[in-house]
Amino acid sequence: MKIDESQPPGYTAEKDALAKRMRRIEGQVRGVGRMIEEDTYCIDVLTQISAINAALHAVGVTLLHDHMSHCVADAARESPEAGEAKLAEASAAIARLIKS
Amino acid sequence: MKIDESQPPGYTAEKDALAKRMRRIEGQVRGVGRMIEEDTYCIDVLTQISAINAALHAVGVTLLHDHMSHCVADAARESPEAGEAKLAEASAAIARLIKS
Amino acid sequence: MKIDESQPPGYTAEKDALAKRMRRIEGQVRGVGRMIEEDTYCIDVLTQISAINAALHAVGVTLLHDHMSHCVADAARESPEAGEAKLAEASAAIARLIKS
Amino acid sequence: MKIDESQPPGYTAEKDALAKRMRRIEGQVRGVGRMIEEDTYCIDVLTQISAINAALHAVGVTLLHDHMSHCVADAARESPEAGEAKLAEASAAIARLIKS
Repeated sequence: MKIDESQPPGYTAEKDALAKRMRRIEGQVRGVGRMIEEDTYCIDVLTQISAINAALHAVGVTLLHDHMSHCVADAARESPEAGEAKLAEASAAIARLIKS
Repeated sequence: MKIDESQPPGYTAEKDALAKRMRRIEGQVRGVGRMIEEDTYCIDVLTQISAINAALHAVGVTLLHDHMSHCVADAARESPEAGEAKLAEASAAIARLIKS
Repeated sequence: MKIDESQPPGYTAEKDALAKRMRRIEGQVRGVGRMIEEDTYCIDVLTQISAINAALHAVGVTLLHDHMSHCVADAARESPEAGEAKLAEASAAIARLIKS
Repeated sequence: MKIDESQPPGYTAEKDALAKRMRRIEGQVRGVGRMIEEDTYCIDVLTQISAINAALHAVGVTLLHDHMSHCVADAARESPEAGEAKLAEASAAIARLIKS
């Protein structure tokens, strides 16, 4: 369903901020691994896992926003069919994000 | 609400397996950071984020199961009040996990 | 995996409150149907759908809490195997609730 | 943040199908209320609640798709600012749907 990927993705302007957020999440995940190795109380580990999930969802929503603002909008300007194909692809990604 | 944390947490038997799963998730998060730095197509990044969320939720459900099988059950044997307090704490963690 | 269902379910004490909450949710769902028929602005319909999902999840967490407090605890008193079977069943229900 | 609501919402073409899906969900919610009143086994009630949540999320994704395909696209044609405002509003709705 991908129509044109030769252009830079929609999140280009925020690339550094997003990469930084992912490094922070990576540190949180490493922290949970350490908590498990150090026999941390289960509920505290679960609280941290919920925080990581929320952070990942927030990155996902930012990526989606930028994707719709650029890739989907560009495709819609190209042709209604191209726009609709991109939108269907984005909707499927939203459905996956909601389920995860 | 924490009653007794002097004992090892309920996930002791699976500690190595859980720590290993967290290291794999850490690698997936690092991979998403790299995808963003390499301008990977947004939808592919989102698919990977959904996969990480699902993996984290699965670890959370395993931790919850072990917690209820050990900490909550031990507390319930101690006294109905202690068991109920642990269960209320676990229910709050489930609610946070569902929202995240 | 169901072991003994001859007893009343764990939520008996709160049955009326839970049935009342479900009637309120039923009214909210009917309201969304009406909003759609009256061409209500999409975002307002979505806000209402999110509120219904949150209300359903809250009922789910209450049911789970009562289930673990009664059915799972009773099974654990019967035998460790019966307790573990009930707990595995509850964990699978938690996983389904998280995904939904 | 709502810019122009004088037009029919984006889901007009599928209005009947969506209203029908909401009536089916309303019946499922009423069914859960009845299950609770009839002391149905907790896990079976939870399975049904998960099914309703999934059905509501699916309606939400359909509404979002139609909203982006019409309202957001129309606003973007009007002006970049109008398009961006509608998109920010849609992203906030997606974030609420993910959390619910």
